[in-house]
Amino acid sequence: MNKKSALELAATCFGFAALALSGCSAPKQTQAAALAFAGETIELASPDNNLKVTFGLTADSVPAYQLTFGDKTVVKPSRLGLKLKEGDLAKGFVIADKKTSSKDETWTPVWGEESEIRNNYNELCVSLNQPSTDRTMGLTFRIYNDGLGFRYDFPDQKKLSYFVVMDELTEFAMTGDHTAWWISGDYDTQEYDYTQSRLSQIRTLAPGARQENSSQCAVSPTAVQTSVQLKTDEGLYINIHEAALVDYSCMNLDLDDKNFVFKSALTPNAIGEMARCQTPFHTPWRTVMVTDDARKTLASRLILNLNEPCAYEDVSWIKPVKYMGVWWEMITNKSTWSYTDDFNSAHIDTDDYSKAKPNGKHAANNENVRKYIDFAAANGMDQLLIEGWNIGWEDWFGHQKDYVFDFVTPYPDFDVKALNAYAKSKGIRLMMHHETSASIRNYERHMDAAYQFMVDNGYNAVKSGYVGPIVTPGEHHYGQWAVNHYLYAVKKAAQYKICVNGHEAVRPTGLCRTYPNLIGNESARGTEYESFGGNKPHHTCILPFTRLQGGPMDYTPGILDTRMSFLDNTDHSTVNTTLCKQLALYVTMYSPLQMAADIPESYQRYADAFQFIKDVAIDWQKSVYLEAEPGAYLTIARKEKGGENWFVGGITNEYERTATVDFSFLDPGVDYTATIYADGPDASYKEKPDSYTIEKKTVNSETKLEIKCASSGGFAISVMK
Amino acid sequence: MNKKSALELAATCFGFAALALSGCSAPKQTQAAALAFAGETIELASPDNNLKVTFGLTADSVPAYQLTFGDKTVVKPSRLGLKLKEGDLAKGFVIADKKTSSKDETWTPVWGEESEIRNNYNELCVSLNQPSTDRTMGLTFRIYNDGLGFRYDFPDQKKLSYFVVMDELTEFAMTGDHTAWWISGDYDTQEYDYTQSRLSQIRTLAPGARQENSSQCAVSPTAVQTSVQLKTDEGLYINIHEAALVDYSCMNLDLDDKNFVFKSALTPNAIGEMARCQTPFHTPWRTVMVTDDARKTLASRLILNLNEPCAYEDVSWIKPVKYMGVWWEMITNKSTWSYTDDFNSAHIDTDDYSKAKPNGKHAANNENVRKYIDFAAANGMDQLLIEGWNIGWEDWFGHQKDYVFDFVTPYPDFDVKALNAYAKSKGIRLMMHHETSASIRNYERHMDAAYQFMVDNGYNAVKSGYVGPIVTPGEHHYGQWAVNHYLYAVKKAAQYKICVNGHEAVRPTGLCRTYPNLIGNESARGTEYESFGGNKPHHTCILPFTRLQGGPMDYTPGILDTRMSFLDNTDHSTVNTTLCKQLALYVTMYSPLQMAADIPESYQRYADAFQFIKDVAIDWQKSVYLEAEPGAYLTIARKEKGGENWFVGGITNEYERTATVDFSFLDPGVDYTATIYADGPDASYKEKPDSYTIEKKTVNSETKLEIKCASSGGFAISVMK
Repeated sequence: MNKKSALELAATCFGFAALALSGCSAPKQTQAAALAFAGETIELASPDNNLKVTFGLTADSVPAYQLTFGDKTVVKPSRLGLKLKEGDLAKGFVIADKKTSSKDETWTPVWGEESEIRNNYNELCVSLNQPSTDRTMGLTFRIYNDGLGFRYDFPDQKKLSYFVVMDELTEFAMTGDHTAWWISGDYDTQEYDYTQSRLSQIRTLAPGARQENSSQCAVSPTAVQTSVQLKTDEGLYINIHEAALVDYSCMNLDLDDKNFVFKSALTPNAIGEMARCQTPFHTPWRTVMVTDDARKTLASRLILNLNEPCAYEDVSWIKPVKYMGVWWEMITNKSTWSYTDDFNSAHIDTDDYSKAKPNGKHAANNENVRKYIDFAAANGMDQLLIEGWNIGWEDWFGHQKDYVFDFVTPYPDFDVKALNAYAKSKGIRLMMHHETSASIRNYERHMDAAYQFMVDNGYNAVKSGYVGPIVTPGEHHYGQWAVNHYLYAVKKAAQYKICVNGHEAVRPTGLCRTYPNLIGNESARGTEYESFGGNKPHHTCILPFTRLQGGPMDYTPGILDTRMSFLDNTDHSTVNTTLCKQLALYVTMYSPLQMAADIPESYQRYADAFQFIKDVAIDWQKSVYLEAEPGAYLTIARKEKGGENWFVGGITNEYERTATVDFSFLDPGVDYTATIYADGPDASYKEKPDSYTIEKKTVNSETKLEIKCASSGGFAISVMK
Repeated sequence: MNKKSALELAATCFGFAALALSGCSAPKQTQAAALAFAGETIELASPDNNLKVTFGLTADSVPAYQLTFGDKTVVKPSRLGLKLKEGDLAKGFVIADKKTSSKDETWTPVWGEESEIRNNYNELCVSLNQPSTDRTMGLTFRIYNDGLGFRYDFPDQKKLSYFVVMDELTEFAMTGDHTAWWISGDYDTQEYDYTQSRLSQIRTLAPGARQENSSQCAVSPTAVQTSVQLKTDEGLYINIHEAALVDYSCMNLDLDDKNFVFKSALTPNAIGEMARCQTPFHTPWRTVMVTDDARKTLASRLILNLNEPCAYEDVSWIKPVKYMGVWWEMITNKSTWSYTDDFNSAHIDTDDYSKAKPNGKHAANNENVRKYIDFAAANGMDQLLIEGWNIGWEDWFGHQKDYVFDFVTPYPDFDVKALNAYAKSKGIRLMMHHETSASIRNYERHMDAAYQFMVDNGYNAVKSGYVGPIVTPGEHHYGQWAVNHYLYAVKKAAQYKICVNGHEAVRPTGLCRTYPNLIGNESARGTEYESFGGNKPHHTCILPFTRLQGGPMDYTPGILDTRMSFLDNTDHSTVNTTLCKQLALYVTMYSPLQMAADIPESYQRYADAFQFIKDVAIDWQKSVYLEAEPGAYLTIARKEKGGENWFVGGITNEYERTATVDFSFLDPGVDYTATIYADGPDASYKEKPDSYTIEKKTVNSETKLEIKCASSGGFAISVMK
């Protein structure tokens, strides 16, 4: 998303009122009668015996499951099954077979929050037969100490080779009117502010929670997106999401707000089908994470563990990246992506840009880019992203334009070879940008040439974008057709040893374990919205519980000059954080791809604070979650991979608080030098965002520090051995 | 299309009854009040001053045109205009400007029915302004002695950069209840038998005229496809079609059968839009051909002339092709495209075909292909098509399967390199086959690799196929999305110097002038249907008036053994022609790509008749249309390009007739040797299809021969100087 698209285009946006016109099919809501098992049930417990899933059939032979945590019910008996074009797989089953097994292994991610991940679960595979159709459907449950994953399995069989999913009936029956941190269900965007409310309040609050977006299509008045974070009045933290979304449509959760039952609401294609499948096939995992401590939710590796191991033999070319960008100055309207105002509409196949009059505001010009290269290289960045380098930006958006970009032709003022050579001479790389304008067919037609162009010119990472309605008529960003494309792009990029950071793509579901060149995604409301009016102060206190469960986010933190008026004198809004909270995000928002998003002038002005961004690691040996409550606060400490230094970040929502940092994670008996970047005594995100202090202290494993966070404030600490 | 798809799949086919369920949007029919011009009209006459188009506005400022031929009205005042998503361009216009011009030129086609084509027309460009919206729409009329072409032009303008066509309002108001040769309107197939009826009978006859097809979607109860051939009771031959269909959706003609007014019915995309356009833009030409002699209709070059000149500088690599194929034995069920029966469903990414058990009926095996190579080379063929050579045919059809073929992996029994080398050693080439199963995204993903594979292995021509519903949800074979693809495939093929013969693609509209590597299309009911129950005897007496107006058809004639039982002993049907009519088709069905479609054994059995197929030219200096009446008979003589020999073909429908061949086209005063292949005295397509005589005669420009044609019979003559 960018500013132009968010502010100028309302024509393609749908609210609930427009639902009937939009082609979106709203799932119908029926009041569910409570399910009950009839006959045999099968129970599977977590390795620590605390979390238990029970599977069985109802009196109608409907498959169902329930989940308990100790003596507390988490998910009441809930139905399973699918509606198919070829006849439903919803009831009339018998249990044909069941098998249990266990796994306890440790695997090594290419990059991550820790250098080794334990994968320890018990598994139950149930084979269900539907005698009336002679078809078999399996269910696999994997139960961990911190959650459950289950999926549908369809073995290769005579009576079921190809099928079309018209609806997935999976339910998650909650026990009450929990507190939820949610964004409204949508087939085309996740770029909404989070709302904290009771489940029963969603219907009332949803219309106000659906900010305009360049592409949006509502699911229903009560639907929410995954991952959704819940908290029970008994203090359980429940999180519902999915893992390993491959060649299937993405799941929203439609809420029956009388009974507090969530039901899977898949994303339809242009003709209302949810997925087309060929056996053998299995759905993505449906996941229910449960803990009694919010810190354990952050420490969970459930989603990653449910994904397949790395698909690549050689991963030596995949590296975490700290980068700057010629970007924030466009987002804030100081400069433009486009090169000229000459064209009434752009025709990249015939327009002669060399003869066009420059508009004088084009940021991706040789001189400006060299200035950024100099600064990025001098400050230890790995790469420099440049947006708006290629022809077509004059009217790239909102026109359902097929041939919108070619991904290889630079503007006349952007010398690809010279700039890459210059960057190389300074020890950094340029980062490629492929905005597709959601013209996916056009992108696929040019993809090989575009990736080869990258290789030929020394690029090894690309930020791709899918702004606006999917140009293929009737398709959605989160439907099977587009989901198939995003992974196609990542797998093809791997053939060229290119890392992908996909914006406006489907939300991640842990696929970065299998395809670690998927080094980042947007798939939520990022820092760019700080320039469109701001994110809510609690936003980054929620994202690690929700969006980040599936994989890293290219949140693009590091806006040290929080005044928009500095860049655009018509805009008097500010970033809704203090300066120090921006620093803390480098620790609290885990990503192997971290941007220093502000412009060089801001970093020069706040050079002492910028030091933290220069110092902070981007790959980790270990992470310790010191304090956490969704929507309220976070304090996280991480140890760099391949080194002895630690970095600590703490943030709060709009309410001031005092964080306690317990340094017991440090090696005992060793003194470390802590550099503490903290909100100043008079700091607040509204009045004094850039009031901060920098203090050096000696700390050891016995140290406990209390650090005051301002309203929407935070702190960052580098702890050097 | 092939037999399996036509016979086994009814599930995706829609009749009119299923229209509401099918996602097809049927244009509404309104009873049109007769239009009348108000105010100024502009008249433009053909170079011979006989055909005249009149343009003007009605009292509502609706643009309209009429067409007259001498003193006869051909098209009564008929409305023009479009409905747009952005506000209609339908009425409220003023004439802002008008310009006339003329052209008389001669151009040289790469291949064709004659070596030089005259392009002689008068042109009127009208610029219309809609003051209420400050938008401009142009109309360009080109009038030839034998017809009219007109199109809408949308110049680049501030108030109209991008627009979505929701309906095209173009009408063709006929003067009465003409006789028509038509196929039912459809968004997905043209593979229907033609019906000859009055316009008023279409509604009644259409349901019976819609044979089942592997993909079909009806337009309305009275819609017909273009080109439609009409004849007035006054003896005028009228033909309505379109020319130069580029990045727009294909037009059907919806008939108001009370008023005999045809209205453009474009093909919708998945969400009911007809076309997405960016200015400057122009629609395809809408064409009305008018003659007073059916032979002039066949001689017309209106459609080609309305297309742009050749887009390629180098055309030396584009050559006409006479070919045989490993094909008829599959179509007739003697053998199979598929290799094995082992798989419940095929997964070309994971199945190990090398370990699969062959089904014993796979035609594309090394031994069989070598036999065909030997025969094709020994009999002067240029190429040999082999279908079923690549993995995936086990369940390629009817499953909306995305990754259905990869276009580069042969079955274990097909040695690509060895067979191409063997063919080369014999002086011929193999012809590639790319069945896509209408999985267009998958084809585009593999297209570069597939074409490169062809180049690497010595192929230079491909038969591509689009059987079954378009896999992209909600799209149709003739919608803008697919139309865009077909031309993309042709233009990309040109980069590899590959000629394309697209089956099940959109009907041709003369684009072969601009892109002459589009060497053929199917886009109608071809010879394959002779094995599915037969084509009507009048079929090939209609195609040259209709389907062939837009470009050559890969009709695949030459079935000399007309009994299906020879190949498939469960099938006792026969081809619905005599043997000699099959020979005549090489002359009457113009194509630079001509197949000898029967199996070698049949040609060995009828070796003396096969001689004509070996002799007949496939590229022409001159064509003379001796006798013609749509649906009844045709006699055509053609002189080979680069030689002095002539070839004559004559055919009839189910009724016997005596053709008269007037040899006055020959050089005067020179004797030629004519070899006459004629139906035997007792021949008939039902009882004695293979009764024929071969006679040699000396002929000169004074000679007139009467030749009897049997029921669905014909004759062929080679005339050697």
